[in-house]
Amino acid sequence: MTGSHPEIAVVMGNENDMLVMQETAKVLDQFGVQYEIDILFTHQDPERMINFAKTALTRKVKVIIAGASGAAHLPGIIAAYTPLPVIGVPIKADYSIDGLDAIYSILQMPQGVPVATMALNGARNAAIFALQILGVVHDSYFELVSAYKNKIKGDAGRSATQLSNLGYERFVAGLK
Amino acid sequence: MTGSHPEIAVVMGNENDMLVMQETAKVLDQFGVQYEIDILFTHQDPERMINFAKTALTRKVKVIIAGASGAAHLPGIIAAYTPLPVIGVPIKADYSIDGLDAIYSILQMPQGVPVATMALNGARNAAIFALQILGVVHDSYFELVSAYKNKIKGDAGRSATQLSNLGYERFVAGLK
Amino acid sequence: MTGSHPEIAVVMGNENDMLVMQETAKVLDQFGVQYEIDILFTHQDPERMINFAKTALTRKVKVIIAGASGAAHLPGIIAAYTPLPVIGVPIKADYSIDGLDAIYSILQMPQGVPVATMALNGARNAAIFALQILGVVHDSYFELVSAYKNKIKGDAGRSATQLSNLGYERFVAGLK
Amino acid sequence: MTGSHPEIAVVMGNENDMLVMQETAKVLDQFGVQYEIDILFTHQDPERMINFAKTALTRKVKVIIAGASGAAHLPGIIAAYTPLPVIGVPIKADYSIDGLDAIYSILQMPQGVPVATMALNGARNAAIFALQILGVVHDSYFELVSAYKNKIKGDAGRSATQLSNLGYERFVAGLK
Amino acid sequence: MTGSHPEIAVVMGNENDMLVMQETAKVLDQFGVQYEIDILFTHQDPERMINFAKTALTRKVKVIIAGASGAAHLPGIIAAYTPLPVIGVPIKADYSIDGLDAIYSILQMPQGVPVATMALNGARNAAIFALQILGVVHDSYFELVSAYKNKIKGDAGRSATQLSNLGYERFVAGLK
Amino acid sequence: MTGSHPEIAVVMGNENDMLVMQETAKVLDQFGVQYEIDILFTHQDPERMINFAKTALTRKVKVIIAGASGAAHLPGIIAAYTPLPVIGVPIKADYSIDGLDAIYSILQMPQGVPVATMALNGARNAAIFALQILGVVHDSYFELVSAYKNKIKGDAGRSATQLSNLGYERFVAGLK
Amino acid sequence: MTGSHPEIAVVMGNENDMLVMQETAKVLDQFGVQYEIDILFTHQDPERMINFAKTALTRKVKVIIAGASGAAHLPGIIAAYTPLPVIGVPIKADYSIDGLDAIYSILQMPQGVPVATMALNGARNAAIFALQILGVVHDSYFELVSAYKNKIKGDAGRSATQLSNLGYERFVAGLK
Amino acid sequence: MTGSHPEIAVVMGNENDMLVMQETAKVLDQFGVQYEIDILFTHQDPERMINFAKTALTRKVKVIIAGASGAAHLPGIIAAYTPLPVIGVPIKADYSIDGLDAIYSILQMPQGVPVATMALNGARNAAIFALQILGVVHDSYFELVSAYKNKIKGDAGRSATQLSNLGYERFVAGLK
Repeated sequence: MTGSHPEIAVVMGNENDMLVMQETAKVLDQFGVQYEIDILFTHQDPERMINFAKTALTRKVKVIIAGASGAAHLPGIIAAYTPLPVIGVPIKADYSIDGLDAIYSILQMPQGVPVATMALNGARNAAIFALQILGVVHDSYFELVSAYKNKIKGDAGRSATQLSNLGYERFVAGLK
Repeated sequence: MTGSHPEIAVVMGNENDMLVMQETAKVLDQFGVQYEIDILFTHQDPERMINFAKTALTRKVKVIIAGASGAAHLPGIIAAYTPLPVIGVPIKADYSIDGLDAIYSILQMPQGVPVATMALNGARNAAIFALQILGVVHDSYFELVSAYKNKIKGDAGRSATQLSNLGYERFVAGLK
Repeated sequence: MTGSHPEIAVVMGNENDMLVMQETAKVLDQFGVQYEIDILFTHQDPERMINFAKTALTRKVKVIIAGASGAAHLPGIIAAYTPLPVIGVPIKADYSIDGLDAIYSILQMPQGVPVATMALNGARNAAIFALQILGVVHDSYFELVSAYKNKIKGDAGRSATQLSNLGYERFVAGLK
Repeated sequence: MTGSHPEIAVVMGNENDMLVMQETAKVLDQFGVQYEIDILFTHQDPERMINFAKTALTRKVKVIIAGASGAAHLPGIIAAYTPLPVIGVPIKADYSIDGLDAIYSILQMPQGVPVATMALNGARNAAIFALQILGVVHDSYFELVSAYKNKIKGDAGRSATQLSNLGYERFVAGLK
Repeated sequence: MTGSHPEIAVVMGNENDMLVMQETAKVLDQFGVQYEIDILFTHQDPERMINFAKTALTRKVKVIIAGASGAAHLPGIIAAYTPLPVIGVPIKADYSIDGLDAIYSILQMPQGVPVATMALNGARNAAIFALQILGVVHDSYFELVSAYKNKIKGDAGRSATQLSNLGYERFVAGLK
Repeated sequence: MTGSHPEIAVVMGNENDMLVMQETAKVLDQFGVQYEIDILFTHQDPERMINFAKTALTRKVKVIIAGASGAAHLPGIIAAYTPLPVIGVPIKADYSIDGLDAIYSILQMPQGVPVATMALNGARNAAIFALQILGVVHDSYFELVSAYKNKIKGDAGRSATQLSNLGYERFVAGLK
Repeated sequence: MTGSHPEIAVVMGNENDMLVMQETAKVLDQFGVQYEIDILFTHQDPERMINFAKTALTRKVKVIIAGASGAAHLPGIIAAYTPLPVIGVPIKADYSIDGLDAIYSILQMPQGVPVATMALNGARNAAIFALQILGVVHDSYFELVSAYKNKIKGDAGRSATQLSNLGYERFVAGLK
Repeated sequence: MTGSHPEIAVVMGNENDMLVMQETAKVLDQFGVQYEIDILFTHQDPERMINFAKTALTRKVKVIIAGASGAAHLPGIIAAYTPLPVIGVPIKADYSIDGLDAIYSILQMPQGVPVATMALNGARNAAIFALQILGVVHDSYFELVSAYKNKIKGDAGRSATQLSNLGYERFVAGLK
């Protein structure tokens, strides 16, 4: 599972996307899962982006997570260059059109070249979904996902108990 | 790869969704890949939907493809019940809000429970993405995806050549 | 009316929804109407959500108010599990798509399984509407609604008089 | 339940809305539930609309269903004039803005005056929801809703069985 | 022109709308034009709203300006009750749907009952347009509009000259 | 009222807009009100458009009705050139963005230069509103509007009576 | 102007885009201006797309027109690979999100890599704008644009005259 | 290239647009390229706007950059008056409809009169695109664009290296 080369690559379209995409990295770190991380600058240095996409397979990458904003071409162009599964994270940037520009640019891929789109700014879920994909081959990843699902279920239960114990007014006071 | 129980389950929220989701089935048929297919009637028979979701793992399903329209809750609720990867296909139905209701209902999942969203009516891509996921463990599926990508590249080349040979006017006449 | 088990249940999809849904509780508190309140964590602990929905009838709940954000599946899935009337409150969360994701996910329910949708963040109106439903059977609730309508009409009249007395400039100064 | 004056009133804003709102009437007819039905011409004859709203209570109406399109003011203005619960049905008309004008005009009511909004063109669900409200006081209506829910569950099961028996290709052929 | 009863009535749907609608009053004050101003609380006290609308003509009102937010029914319902021209101002409120709810609720009026819709929060233009309407009968109002148009043209010219003199960097510094 | 030069000018941005704007002409014809009508070709022949706008006042035009589609600049540019009131009709054209391009281009005018915007394709209401404006000075126009309002109220009453007499099923059959 | 290698390249993302992009070709044909035309299949054969973009400069192309639909990455990726000006044409395809997916994917390019976006399906204007760009260096192209502008002005004048001669009713009859 | 009269004109619709459009000026300043800059006040002083547009050609302007907000008519009306290429910059203003009003008003131009639309608030890209147009005739401008593209590619490389050296956590800390 945590062999010599990471099976997950996390990339993004520009520096500011890192403010969102760091959440993908943090989840993977918490799970102790190795990953590559890079900023590919889709339109500023397309050669580097395409070199990344073309070589991902030979570098033994198994899943690619790509976050992008605005005219968010990164996930789709990577998907055009590799048979590996690509997970896209639409990011809401300043002067974006409410993030819809990124959602539509990532989601609406043509037949034959899918990108698995996450929620707006859904960087954490991209990490989870990558583990779900790799869980097909790695039992340990599958167990990580199952354990994570159990954990958030436990958190949910504790939160509900807390509401029951405190009443909603003190519960709300504790939220802020 | 084509063992005794299918690794892919294709489900949808109601009968009419089948008009779109048959494309998923057709692609899998063309690839000779086995799959389950069912209509789960999310809000009409939720027990059956949840039974499907809870037992998918023990039935050896590896990837779930779920198409839905309107208040498209099927993919997200299945994802809540299983650690398996879920691919969602938003479907544009009559009196939907231009399909945006389905897209938003499938895409905007909370942290911890991702759904991999395809394009509007993107049933074919759901099949391709399922194979990309399974390609992580099955070399033969990986080869299917690679072969498919080569095929559409070849088709593209032939089409471009045809344009070059015919000129755009005769090419357009042939499209109609 | 205020017997041993509350007839109104107020639930929501996650902790942060409480910042909006506390308004439902406050209105009911002001009216002296009993209610259950719980956070159901739709996708984190779906079993508990469904157990809530399936047992509501036997617990003598008569009306369910469910608030949710993002891919807001809670009201619709509860409605799938109970013949009781369900009132949905779409909530505008961070990184939601301007709250439209919640509105569409709650509103666009299929035939046979309605959810009565309130305005965006309309938690107070959900409480009023629950009383309007229960007013069909409880005259005292009907009188609560009528008294409330009289009160806001009286407030309106006083505000208009104040504008008339002060002029708009001093009236605006008093608003801030 | 089916006493001398109907407890449900079905109204709409203009003649063409009847093409959608007849579905409400049909469902109520199927259930053998009495109802008033009228076209109120919101902006053409507001006096008549307001007279309807003001007298509904004394006519022993218990629930009002109001369908409207475009600048869909009918449900909200009725709600302003009566303490009775009002169910609103947004209707997609020619030259509406994709039906969003009706949805927003009905949904976004201010504090104190809720309208329970149904899906776009959701006239059938308005009938079901009216019965759910009246089921609070009439056990027979509650049983109608429960029986209806069982029926659509049964239909769902039969449809799923049919798919299983026929395979998707013949199933799709039967849909058209 | 400035006779014993004002020819312009400025009304709005609730207290908070005054934060925008005060701009209408300020423009009319600057022009020395008399006007009525009132808050009509559309859904809280509809009788008062309708009484306003029905009596406007006999009070010698000539033009009505109505601002509203959310499910903005005020301008349209007034228009239903009077043959006088009604100018609508859509207002962007908290938890409105980006102000589109108000725009659509005011703009999309049915045949026979127009409302002249201004830009989002366009309270100043409502005053100008009211004067343009009254300018048809009052030469002095026509001259006010013409003078105002000359003034903003003069302001424009001075601003352009200032840019020319200062250069853009110092001009921008002066804007902030 | 029907003197030697028309007080109403009806203009539009291109030939196809006439398919909608003919409704303005028809209403004015029915009322026996004179009007100018012209196609101004906003971007193809701007000189002619501006000449129209600059000379409208001297030609004794009192109200201008301008319909336009797409980047609908016609009403706003005319308003920039004349102190006369301008009524804008947004038109939904082929390949428009659902008519929102025309609505926004006409509605969102800056301070000082209002355009009174009608509903999408609301050409008939533009005629009514023009008469409401002119009714300020012409009692006969005011009476036309009042008579029209009475007529549509009478039509409404007859339609409601017909529904009452026929029942909804035969009423709907008569609509088609 | 019409030298040995065309200065304008017209490309598109797939076969169906040709139904719209043939209009670009037709305009250039009418003007007697040479051009390359090709289908680049953005995501099916990205190497060919990038080879096109990288070699355009050396092939003496001066302006690139790129039409695309859905997740419309073609114009932006070409712009990333060449210093030549790129004109983008968003195309409304089946199951696109009303064409907004294409508009946003083409328009919202990051700093440093502009794409000049035309109206939805604005293929003819792309040809005109290409000539406007080349008119900077070719006087003959500049004259073509000026002549074209004169022609559409003349057409406009004739159409307005026709309306004046025929009256609107016969004019409309002639439109259909 | 930097002769006696600037070939680029930068204009905008009002003073506040300068807060965005100064970015166009800054980029041109950095490149040492001369330009005119003016505020044209589209609707406040249309004569001046049109005089600008009509005389641009004789003043030897080659490319016009026009920024505007709200009902953003400036770029389109200039384009109607000149055969020169016009680049439009949609600007997101207060109380705009999320900037979509400006985008649609600029983008959706009719056949024959294109405006090359940049991203929302894309003032810097307007400068780059102007240089790309002029690069057709001025080799030095072409080299400026190529050098700029190299620079942003170099910046991208340095940023990626920095991420590689620092790790994402320290990299993010440096961003803020």
